[in-house]
Amino acid sequence: MSPERLVVIGGDAAGMSAASQARRLRGPDELEIVAFERGHFTSFSACGIPYWVGGAVAGRDELIARGPEEHRARGIDLRMRTEVVAVDVAGKRVRARELDGGGGEFWTSYDKLVIATGARPVRPPLPGIGAAGVHGVQTLDDGQALLETLRAGEGRRAVVVGAGYIGVEMAEALIRRGYDTTVVNQDSEPMATLDPDMGRLVRRAMTGLGITMVDDAEVTKVLTDGHGRVRAVATDDVEFPADVVVLGIGVRPETGLAREAGLPLGEHGGLLTDISMRVRGHTDIWAGGDCVEVRDLVSGGERHIALGTHANKHGQVIGSNVGGDYATFPGVVATAVSKVCDLEIARTGLREKDARRAGLQYVTVTVESTSRAGYYPGAAPMTVKMLAERRTGRLLGVQIVGREGAAKRVDVAAVALTAGMTVDQMTALDLGYAPPFSPVWDPVLVAARKAVAAVREAG
Amino acid sequence: MSPERLVVIGGDAAGMSAASQARRLRGPDELEIVAFERGHFTSFSACGIPYWVGGAVAGRDELIARGPEEHRARGIDLRMRTEVVAVDVAGKRVRARELDGGGGEFWTSYDKLVIATGARPVRPPLPGIGAAGVHGVQTLDDGQALLETLRAGEGRRAVVVGAGYIGVEMAEALIRRGYDTTVVNQDSEPMATLDPDMGRLVRRAMTGLGITMVDDAEVTKVLTDGHGRVRAVATDDVEFPADVVVLGIGVRPETGLAREAGLPLGEHGGLLTDISMRVRGHTDIWAGGDCVEVRDLVSGGERHIALGTHANKHGQVIGSNVGGDYATFPGVVATAVSKVCDLEIARTGLREKDARRAGLQYVTVTVESTSRAGYYPGAAPMTVKMLAERRTGRLLGVQIVGREGAAKRVDVAAVALTAGMTVDQMTALDLGYAPPFSPVWDPVLVAARKAVAAVREAG
Repeated sequence: MSPERLVVIGGDAAGMSAASQARRLRGPDELEIVAFERGHFTSFSACGIPYWVGGAVAGRDELIARGPEEHRARGIDLRMRTEVVAVDVAGKRVRARELDGGGGEFWTSYDKLVIATGARPVRPPLPGIGAAGVHGVQTLDDGQALLETLRAGEGRRAVVVGAGYIGVEMAEALIRRGYDTTVVNQDSEPMATLDPDMGRLVRRAMTGLGITMVDDAEVTKVLTDGHGRVRAVATDDVEFPADVVVLGIGVRPETGLAREAGLPLGEHGGLLTDISMRVRGHTDIWAGGDCVEVRDLVSGGERHIALGTHANKHGQVIGSNVGGDYATFPGVVATAVSKVCDLEIARTGLREKDARRAGLQYVTVTVESTSRAGYYPGAAPMTVKMLAERRTGRLLGVQIVGREGAAKRVDVAAVALTAGMTVDQMTALDLGYAPPFSPVWDPVLVAARKAVAAVREAG
Repeated sequence: MSPERLVVIGGDAAGMSAASQARRLRGPDELEIVAFERGHFTSFSACGIPYWVGGAVAGRDELIARGPEEHRARGIDLRMRTEVVAVDVAGKRVRARELDGGGGEFWTSYDKLVIATGARPVRPPLPGIGAAGVHGVQTLDDGQALLETLRAGEGRRAVVVGAGYIGVEMAEALIRRGYDTTVVNQDSEPMATLDPDMGRLVRRAMTGLGITMVDDAEVTKVLTDGHGRVRAVATDDVEFPADVVVLGIGVRPETGLAREAGLPLGEHGGLLTDISMRVRGHTDIWAGGDCVEVRDLVSGGERHIALGTHANKHGQVIGSNVGGDYATFPGVVATAVSKVCDLEIARTGLREKDARRAGLQYVTVTVESTSRAGYYPGAAPMTVKMLAERRTGRLLGVQIVGREGAAKRVDVAAVALTAGMTVDQMTALDLGYAPPFSPVWDPVLVAARKAVAAVREAG
């Protein structure tokens, strides 16, 4: 009996995790695995790019978890620089194009298909957006191109468009490299994944670093010089001179291929899957990573979250199922952590506007506490905001901004959200206490206690 | 109508939290509050004493959260240096003795009683144990006495008896002060709240600091010089010269008073309460803090855990109930964190021997991971050990030893234990990921994945 044939589209975290896990479970005589990657790299950490550009990480190769040869050594037929241009669902085959060399195209059949096409940075169709010196930072190639611009450039003015995670991290990277850095942000505060009152704390830190923050500003064009190089970014009113521009406006699922193949997409443009990461309505097609939407366990809705940790989990789940085992990905609570200089930023669950959108009535509390016992050297302030459902007291979300020890504290709330705990239940949580690590009431517990009172008061 | 009368025995965390919370809920016209404290201080952080002795915390007063006058200003009739010597349960009164001045005794009645008598350090009845230079470190007075010995002393040799949290922290404090420090430990490894394989990692760090570790050694006497001062600590075989000795052998509930009053004590000698912290079988007596036993939510048994964070929670719960509100303390999962130099040590749930004792069959896994993405500067190794129940896969316990970021990671497991999660459910937890804070698979998730496999393999 000839082996089954698994085709994987996309050679990054989700795709290659799926391939590796499937290979672990089924040998080459049972399962043939072919993976197509249109880029030059496999299994790299996109999340690490800002640190590479900023100089904290020495070289590109450190961001590569596993290169093509390592995957091939494990019995995966990996075709680099080969783009899948069509999926024929009825015929169970894909059409691939070799990007280097002759550009030949060919059909290849599959028994099982994994779609892991990732995401692409939003590039609004503005005049001048394609100018030299305007960079996305989604792939290692993007990072390399940006670094080349920085190394070659004579000017020292950088503009970052967008103030989400990537925008904020890139702004820090650029100011570390000595650039006069301006962040142009369409929202009222940076880090719109936080509520604005918490985003304000991030703004303060960024301003403190010397970054110029321009809020409520929509970039309408990119201005170029006579050589087609960027010279400024402009809103309707103002021009911001720029020798280099970084786009950090977010990413969208890369699902053009899936759409053309007639596969189901959600409201965020991502592929829709069931809990086993199988594409809805299809028994032989799985999808994972930045190209899918996932269930939000708090609101019950769908989200698109491009994050390596999810992509790896999806790959693991897909590979297990493809390999004949069983695993599921129930969903996310949308935890995210980041840092700007020594400021740590964390969120999980719903923001106020998410809760409103989901029809949830809620209370919010915000507390100021410290990372360690107040008397212990290095105790740093920490602000914790908590949302709880009115009446039931169910935890809905937590946002934390502080110094050392702030970011990963959000994990307590992430687990509590997953378990569906109420803020009342949280007040009794047995969290680690010792003076170097926490006040006698952990900041998360202080917030929970206050939230209990707020829920009662709201009636 | 005259106000109800609440008597509180013990002016530290549990007692004064209870008094304060009751006062918040009921004014002086409704509730009279009298609190007796036999020592010189109220509401201090015993957990902070090692850092004060070690010099990290500048002065004693920093460890006092709230002094007597602050409590009095809130309408609590606080009697310092007044020891309660008897409780007459049938007569609803206590007998108090004034320790300073005339030593007068008097009976005073209560409508409601809170017992928060704390714990006392174990002082085995060894020859010489009362010698000058032999110190416990349970109270601020203890800490003060130890510091005076250290300041006056000419010798530079210290012996710490016991290698639990206090022993380990005190050993670090003493070596920081330039003492030649030996830890004499009756167990095979330090930190017996961990399994020995994890304790071994702590030993390595302590040895690395220059601390001499003597294991499997039982101190049988304390040797003194001609002036009644300690000169050595001895086992049956060996003498360890000592200019100062610190006892870190643990503490026991201070429940002599309760025993004499006929109140119910558990197998660890602590008062037994219901979920509202009311002493079992008594409608008007509550107890909390280091003098009670608490329910272990993982094994279902009882534990005695002397820890400020629990005492504060107990006080809060008691005060709410005494004040006519309602609150409960469901129990603990026995989370504890500590540090030795830059080594962080954490545990929650059951050790192997706890699981065996509880009749649980289990699997264990141990993984090595890092605190940050491997490529991110400062990524430090971290060892995570996980216990899961055989068959069900329910999480039973986690121990973590590592550098920065190791200790508070245990909180994820503490919440998961409280929620009764399986290791399989844990693998899907949405924990914060960014290169400065975690590898793409958080170390706790790596352990959970491995535990899932171990549970399956065990069948």
